Amino acid sequence: MADTIPARPVVADTIPGRPVVAESVAGLGPVESVAVDGLEDQLARVALTWLAEPGNRAIWSLVQEVGAPAVLDRLIAGDVPDRKLRGSVAARLTAGDPRRFAEIALRRGERLGARLVVPSDPEWPRRLTDLATLELDTTGRYNHDIRPPLCFWVRGEWPLGRTLDRSIAIVGARAATDYGTNVTGDLAYSVACEGWTVLSGGAFGIDAAAHRGALAADGRTVAVLACGVERPYPAGNSALLERVAETGLLISEWPIGADPLRHRFLIRNRVIAAATAGTVVVEAAARSGATQTMSRVLALGRPAMVVPGPVTSAMSVGCHEILRSNPDARIVTSATEILEEVGRIGEYLADPPRGRERRHDRLDEESTLVMEALPANRSSTPELIAAEARLELPTVLRRLSLLEMAGLVVRAGNGYILRHSPSGTG
Amino acid sequence: MADTIPARPVVADTIPGRPVVAESVAGLGPVESVAVDGLEDQLARVALTWLAEPGNRAIWSLVQEVGAPAVLDRLIAGDVPDRKLRGSVAARLTAGDPRRFAEIALRRGERLGARLVVPSDPEWPRRLTDLATLELDTTGRYNHDIRPPLCFWVRGEWPLGRTLDRSIAIVGARAATDYGTNVTGDLAYSVACEGWTVLSGGAFGIDAAAHRGALAADGRTVAVLACGVERPYPAGNSALLERVAETGLLISEWPIGADPLRHRFLIRNRVIAAATAGTVVVEAAARSGATQTMSRVLALGRPAMVVPGPVTSAMSVGCHEILRSNPDARIVTSATEILEEVGRIGEYLADPPRGRERRHDRLDEESTLVMEALPANRSSTPELIAAEARLELPTVLRRLSLLEMAGLVVRAGNGYILRHSPSGTG
Repeated sequence: MADTIPARPVVADTIPGRPVVAESVAGLGPVESVAVDGLEDQLARVALTWLAEPGNRAIWSLVQEVGAPAVLDRLIAGDVPDRKLRGSVAARLTAGDPRRFAEIALRRGERLGARLVVPSDPEWPRRLTDLATLELDTTGRYNHDIRPPLCFWVRGEWPLGRTLDRSIAIVGARAATDYGTNVTGDLAYSVACEGWTVLSGGAFGIDAAAHRGALAADGRTVAVLACGVERPYPAGNSALLERVAETGLLISEWPIGADPLRHRFLIRNRVIAAATAGTVVVEAAARSGATQTMSRVLALGRPAMVVPGPVTSAMSVGCHEILRSNPDARIVTSATEILEEVGRIGEYLADPPRGRERRHDRLDEESTLVMEALPANRSSTPELIAAEARLELPTVLRRLSLLEMAGLVVRAGNGYILRHSPSGTG
Repeated sequence: MADTIPARPVVADTIPGRPVVAESVAGLGPVESVAVDGLEDQLARVALTWLAEPGNRAIWSLVQEVGAPAVLDRLIAGDVPDRKLRGSVAARLTAGDPRRFAEIALRRGERLGARLVVPSDPEWPRRLTDLATLELDTTGRYNHDIRPPLCFWVRGEWPLGRTLDRSIAIVGARAATDYGTNVTGDLAYSVACEGWTVLSGGAFGIDAAAHRGALAADGRTVAVLACGVERPYPAGNSALLERVAETGLLISEWPIGADPLRHRFLIRNRVIAAATAGTVVVEAAARSGATQTMSRVLALGRPAMVVPGPVTSAMSVGCHEILRSNPDARIVTSATEILEEVGRIGEYLADPPRGRERRHDRLDEESTLVMEALPANRSSTPELIAAEARLELPTVLRRLSLLEMAGLVVRAGNGYILRHSPSGTG
């Protein structure tokens, strides 16, 4: 059967057909390694997302244990412990052969320039692994089935993982006000200028303004769809989404041909929350999709950022609701404040500064080396700093611009100078 | 000399001339009781606020120890431990005799219908005692001299203490936007309708809108001035402030004739913070008077409430700044949310509900009796509840309306019904 499947239309550097090892789950300890054929794995993962919605807890766990092809076999054979899942899979099987469907989808994907990315690929985004252990306080099916994606369909040239490494989600209401879309455009433009990828959901209103802002900055933007990547939804945004595919990435967990069903947006939102370094909500109605996304961001412990608005605006009610009910949600009013928040995780600050602790008490190792390489009372060039700190020049330049943003160094002529005395830097 | 001082033009029930006992300080243990003649005490307190600005830490402590008249004697004699205070008092003494000044001020006050209220009076507002032990993290003179007032000049018929018992401060920028004044007017109107006194600083913009909102509701409002109560400042608000004096209260720590000097507003702000059950900032520029008031509210542990606004508005920058830098500051968007916050202290909830604790686990005694007097599954009238709970009817009505606001009971016909099952009420 494998010879009916097209070779992958790929940017990535994996060789189709090589045996791969199923991903292990961070925090869950070693998972049994299952050797699976690459093409067979792809086919099975696509078939599984056709048989059941992505995020399904039982399926994801089984895939970790025995690999996607074996799970597919078991589902087709009706060998499913979960009675509800067994029923829905049986119903779906009456609509066709999942393997056949997957083959067609992969062939169509190739023709349309869409590639499939699976966890064994180098470009698989690592942050999504946090969904493996996520538990939400709230009940309901979409709060239960929040496991990592089985695969991503991707349109666009950038490697998925590295594009998402420095990414910020900016999301919000479809029925946004001028205030909301203007603020969103400004924020997206500014964070894109700083080299961050702007991720959103491709919808009207705030989402579209976020993508447009990043495009206006010639920055990178990613739209996470809840349908096949061949049919940008909503249709009114298709020109915008085509531009996103050309200069950034259009991605989806759902196979080519999948419809944008209403509940899929709720399933998709966990990816927006988990794929990014932090999420900003600009405008949101009460108890809306954006507030649901935020509950996932908060549960993941990622920066949950909220732009306030007039209390007289229905489109800011959801924003204020999030701020009122979650002490961990942060009010943000500018791109600088957003970058401060996301900078806290994995960027230039290892941990959020608490109480009277000074910001540079918490610098990561590279930033500390850069700070220590700066003379106490005069400026130094990036080249000299690189030599002194024994770091690569691009690393030094990157750290310097982050340290500048953090207010710890300032530009002086061709170089940089410490803003504070260097005592306590270590 | 006492016979040159006018009898007090007073609503209060103290008899001028009777010996009184200086206030003790809550939380400081018993303070030495100093028997002082009432008129002599008044005169000395007025003279002291003429010699040095209210809030002075050294003077206040001395007054607690030896009484106001003795402190005045010592200041006049140059017997002051604090060298800086000694210098400024000496300079002031060259301008005239403080006792003579105080006599004139009290006589003018009587003519103008302004009374003097001192700590030994029954109408003295008790909450101000919290300033006795307040310490701020920030430095600077106005953050040091934050002790309770020595006296209040009052215009208006309501007893000061009871008027402030259920009071909320609503303050903000003078250069307010239409958004700010509209929101302020709405909030003040609504909280005044619920029987709360609206306190503000009498300034243009947010302050004026707060007073007007309360007046529109036929509610009570108090303006705390930073100059003599005979000369409402700013002049542009004099018609408004005269109306406040007629239907509410105009109050000040400064004697009749005192000018509204710039630094006096910063001294005055501690009274706004300490006199009320909570403070709402509607619009504020960065690092403005309103943010200074809020630092006192937060240090006092009172509800510090902030109305957000557009991030594009300079008049909301201070609001968002307060929210971002103080985890204890609460975002509020409606009168209901404000009443929830102030209800937490001394109203229907003994303590803020935490975690999963149910709100009615924390009811005060009267509310608990009312809840227990309600049948499990049908409504009851206030009269029947009063009989069952062995409470007065007005008390029952008041508790019912608070319980209704808290969502614990709902109106049903002529009576009320429990919203939740009564288990766990006790």
